[in-house]
Amino acid sequence: MKLSMAAELAVRGILSLAQRYGQEPVPLEEICQEGKLPKEYLTKIFSLLARANLVRAVRGKRGGYVLARSPKEITLLSVVEAVEGPLAVNLCQHAPARCDRADCRVRPIWADIQQKLRDALGGYTLDQLMSEPPPSSQSP
Amino acid sequence: MKLSMAAELAVRGILSLAQRYGQEPVPLEEICQEGKLPKEYLTKIFSLLARANLVRAVRGKRGGYVLARSPKEITLLSVVEAVEGPLAVNLCQHAPARCDRADCRVRPIWADIQQKLRDALGGYTLDQLMSEPPPSSQSP
Repeated sequence: MKLSMAAELAVRGILSLAQRYGQEPVPLEEICQEGKLPKEYLTKIFSLLARANLVRAVRGKRGGYVLARSPKEITLLSVVEAVEGPLAVNLCQHAPARCDRADCRVRPIWADIQQKLRDALGGYTLDQLMSEPPPSSQSP
Repeated sequence: MKLSMAAELAVRGILSLAQRYGQEPVPLEEICQEGKLPKEYLTKIFSLLARANLVRAVRGKRGGYVLARSPKEITLLSVVEAVEGPLAVNLCQHAPARCDRADCRVRPIWADIQQKLRDALGGYTLDQLMSEPPPSSQSP
């Protein structure tokens, strides 16, 4: 149950833009160099982020990418979903119609777990990822 | 960010045993037929569940599998981790040593999200997956 590599790279890449919000467009090459990110992936990922209206491409000699909205208005969930599609923790949440168990007791439990994950990801904005002092680690 | 197919099958398979807790061992073939689950996967998955001490193989003519503990003592988290290994929502939680960013602001946030997912999965036992009336769906 892990974030896809594409979403992982999307988070790192968009944070580069967030850190320069309100400034000049940032060329993709620069974002890649800064974050040691592979350009062949980032091109595709940034076009997905643009389609989700999280970043905007600026054409021209001094072109590049800018954040389409304030870092306060972009959640981790929106970045993940821009790249992975709607969050679905398992098969029955991803494609309920493909399951033939009408009165399944487990499905609402997966729905509950999925909602908690959505809330966790939706509870953090890019702004917080940049500026918040690290909370005490809660890893096991 | 989705459950692996192996973990998905593990949950369905172990629920078959939970529903017959305290009864005769259940042959793997029966578990597969009941849940329409592929036997080639289930053999491997049940050996992982046995290694994690969640199920126990009983040899002999009327052998099969039994739950190693009460359904009240087995959480969804323990089933998922038996099959997928320790829960890690992303690369930096999976292998912190492979990241060279010493004062990363994002890592503690991933740790927090991971803990919330652990709590959600750890909050449900097999007992609840069988007997609890479905809560009102909270899917988006």
